[in-house]
Amino acid sequence: MLNDNEITVSLHKNATGILKAFSPVTKNYLPGEYPVATISEINSIGTAAEKAFPVYGRKTAEQRAAFLEAIGDEIMALGDELIQLTMLESGLPEARLIGERARTVGQLKLFAEVLREGSWVEAVIDTALPDRKPLPRPDLRKMLLPIGPVLVFGASNFPFAFSTAGGDTASALAAGNPVIVKAHEGHPGTHELMTNAIKRAAQKTNMPDAVFSSVTSNDIETIQYLVKHEAIKAIGFTGSYKAGMSIFKTAATGRKTPIPVYAEMSSINPVLLLPGKLEKESSTVAAQLAASITLGTGQFCTNPGLLFLIESEAGEKFITTLGDQLKNIAPATMLNRNVCSNYYHSKNVLLQQPGVKVVVAVESAEGDLKGSSVLLQTSAADFIKNENLQAEVFGPCSLIVRCKDQHELLQAVNSLNGQLTGTVMSLEEDLETFAPCIEVLAGKVGRLLYNGVPTGVEVCHAMVHGGPYPATTNAGSTSVGADAIKRFARPVCLQDCPAELLPLALKNENSLNIMRKLNGHYTRNSLTIDA
Amino acid sequence: MLNDNEITVSLHKNATGILKAFSPVTKNYLPGEYPVATISEINSIGTAAEKAFPVYGRKTAEQRAAFLEAIGDEIMALGDELIQLTMLESGLPEARLIGERARTVGQLKLFAEVLREGSWVEAVIDTALPDRKPLPRPDLRKMLLPIGPVLVFGASNFPFAFSTAGGDTASALAAGNPVIVKAHEGHPGTHELMTNAIKRAAQKTNMPDAVFSSVTSNDIETIQYLVKHEAIKAIGFTGSYKAGMSIFKTAATGRKTPIPVYAEMSSINPVLLLPGKLEKESSTVAAQLAASITLGTGQFCTNPGLLFLIESEAGEKFITTLGDQLKNIAPATMLNRNVCSNYYHSKNVLLQQPGVKVVVAVESAEGDLKGSSVLLQTSAADFIKNENLQAEVFGPCSLIVRCKDQHELLQAVNSLNGQLTGTVMSLEEDLETFAPCIEVLAGKVGRLLYNGVPTGVEVCHAMVHGGPYPATTNAGSTSVGADAIKRFARPVCLQDCPAELLPLALKNENSLNIMRKLNGHYTRNSLTIDA
Repeated sequence: MLNDNEITVSLHKNATGILKAFSPVTKNYLPGEYPVATISEINSIGTAAEKAFPVYGRKTAEQRAAFLEAIGDEIMALGDELIQLTMLESGLPEARLIGERARTVGQLKLFAEVLREGSWVEAVIDTALPDRKPLPRPDLRKMLLPIGPVLVFGASNFPFAFSTAGGDTASALAAGNPVIVKAHEGHPGTHELMTNAIKRAAQKTNMPDAVFSSVTSNDIETIQYLVKHEAIKAIGFTGSYKAGMSIFKTAATGRKTPIPVYAEMSSINPVLLLPGKLEKESSTVAAQLAASITLGTGQFCTNPGLLFLIESEAGEKFITTLGDQLKNIAPATMLNRNVCSNYYHSKNVLLQQPGVKVVVAVESAEGDLKGSSVLLQTSAADFIKNENLQAEVFGPCSLIVRCKDQHELLQAVNSLNGQLTGTVMSLEEDLETFAPCIEVLAGKVGRLLYNGVPTGVEVCHAMVHGGPYPATTNAGSTSVGADAIKRFARPVCLQDCPAELLPLALKNENSLNIMRKLNGHYTRNSLTIDA
Repeated sequence: MLNDNEITVSLHKNATGILKAFSPVTKNYLPGEYPVATISEINSIGTAAEKAFPVYGRKTAEQRAAFLEAIGDEIMALGDELIQLTMLESGLPEARLIGERARTVGQLKLFAEVLREGSWVEAVIDTALPDRKPLPRPDLRKMLLPIGPVLVFGASNFPFAFSTAGGDTASALAAGNPVIVKAHEGHPGTHELMTNAIKRAAQKTNMPDAVFSSVTSNDIETIQYLVKHEAIKAIGFTGSYKAGMSIFKTAATGRKTPIPVYAEMSSINPVLLLPGKLEKESSTVAAQLAASITLGTGQFCTNPGLLFLIESEAGEKFITTLGDQLKNIAPATMLNRNVCSNYYHSKNVLLQQPGVKVVVAVESAEGDLKGSSVLLQTSAADFIKNENLQAEVFGPCSLIVRCKDQHELLQAVNSLNGQLTGTVMSLEEDLETFAPCIEVLAGKVGRLLYNGVPTGVEVCHAMVHGGPYPATTNAGSTSVGADAIKRFARPVCLQDCPAELLPLALKNENSLNIMRKLNGHYTRNSLTIDA
């Protein structure tokens, strides 16, 4: 996350100075000093990335795959130094960071695998029909090609998996684009270590130096200048709604050339707790949700912040059980001072809305930079009429929405904004009755899950970590999983291209053995044309 | 095209009245009267489209395919009445319109074929790994699903293929979305006939009535209101840069929920005339280009408006020959008064730029609403330093850019904005020498073609009718060809979804026989899971 100020248009101020990380663990600045980029440095970085693009773009899929794997190796080689520093910068515990590092390296390997398999380029060939009447058809072949330098804004809550060497960077590099990462100011030391790992990997695998660049800045005008730089062809962002929308609007209307912004921003991840499930498995569901709400001190984009139920005896029992569970979870260190103060502030704003009441509120530990669990409740009627009840509270807080009946549940679900995830907690017997609610929920989310918790985003082929606005600025894409690569490529059609100039993916012979669409049919066969 | 006024933000005025078409053929208003939509009618249309969405979205691929084919049948059933009216409204000749009708019907059939083949939904399945350590993997399945009502703004220059029942409408309906078309004010009668054909097809194939709606208006505020209507989930647009960008900006920043705009706007379609080709085939190339520049009186998005050559004797001969060819082509009726006056105006603005000179200018026929051919020339030095020389002149006009040498050609190509197409006219012997120029050109276009003319956009699987800004607002998509359907769908992931609730495309059994990605491997096989 950037800070919450709107990025302004003025470009006159030239940032200088030093950035230091404040540790939520030691409650003090850490020793590292990170120089802030100047406008002139940003111009150099932009130009270098532009120049590196054709060089990097010409590397084979195998060469890019080896580069991604080398990044993974270099990250592992950072060893315990990385883990210890990130613990101090982010307040995240060791085991979690070791797991997140594995996920990050696994993500790089997934994209290496996608590159080696090769079909992601969506090669399509329609052969010439020289004798067609009234007009002949030319030979037409298309595939996805890289777009140019990509700017990445990482998130504070996943300093490895969604930051410097995270999914946006991995997928943009995989597609063949140079990457510029704006360091997250919460973990500049982690960023520096990761940057060095990527730079070493680039050197070892013979990639151009400017295939990866880093910009450190806490100056809004400098960051704004970077977003407007014409070298940048797309932006990947994970963070707050305000910062994401500021970047999105600048990219759409403040640049000479508008560019796409893939911003993953804000989601409260509604959960439908259907009657049978609450009747039969109330304690299990409460335990699952208590763990999910407080996982990583609630600092997950997929944190279940909204729990819908129809009022019943079982429902009351569930609310009590969930409250009891949350009471027993000790406050834990949050990512940084901003996140912590925003958590308590936005929780209080939510609590001040008409009709919102406390079920359980563990005593504030804000002074200790820790997040205390909070469970709130309201009526569906109040929820439906007040969109403020849909504001994200980033931390271990969830709001129960009590519905009178199925009809009111449907209305409440219908009033939801776009979400990353939606969860259905249901026995088989309720699924048909509540099909209309589930259908409406499916239309609002990127991922619909049954009888599980939304936290935990699998890095795989079938993942969608995305969803309708305001969850993201581009519902047609995912920021996690194999298809994240497609955000940073565009289709190019070659018409009557001489055989020797065709890229390997589009030649008659399918030497890459990729899946292609030939005259409308999917096949891995080579193309045989009668001469 | 809309008219060139910026769409303004005010919503206070409520449009009323009647729209009539002015014929560029009779130079008079045609008898038809078309009532202009009120704000209240637009609200009703939006609500009806929203309600029709789940009903239409539930139709099977086969049912949607039958609907698209029925639209084609109904269009053919309009018979000569359609052709004769469109001739009067657009000034386009009979043979061209008969051809365009065939293309339009063929386009509907292509999408029916895409639906029946079924693989376009990009079904991906990653099966559960319950025993994986440290955490089990859930069952994850994803596919593309429709997004909701799509608003389409058709173009004047293809009253069939890029208008009411054109590619945007066909692809949005194919994906499962209701469509609202804003009638082009140049051909309201054609629009009405097409609307009725679509409505009849919907009725005959048992589709909800509001699967298709029409809005007629020449009032900027009403149109603005429509663009901002929350029922609309995406916009397809073909037309002028100004109108396209106005809609794009409103959609990005003027709505509660930003939506994607697929606007195809402005392209001057550069052609590289390489030395060997001019040396050996000067007259053939001149004849090809003269035909392409004047095809449809130059009113094609892919009209070759920019011809690059390196100065030489053969080049001079080519310029003379092309000029002679153009001189002999009689001025022809343009689409409407706006297009005609804009043509002469923008041609004059171009001519007034420093360093631009006339090669041939056929006498103006503006009074007769006809477009006269114009061939201009300038130096690469002048071209590079003045972006005004890249303004689209929509009509039979082309600008020759004279380069001193290969280096200057590279610089000139490098200075180009994004384009729908780029053309390389070259003998095999020049390809290697000019590879750097060709590579740069490829990075700026959606379609790169060799030794052909850019006019003529094949409707097929491998087509890309798109390209970097300002050619379009979304370089990642195409508005022509099978993949146009993907603009109007988004991926949704289902996690641990009960088998009976899975859509057909995602069930274990592959009853649709579509290509799917199962645990990373492409296959049409069904999935067998050990129970």
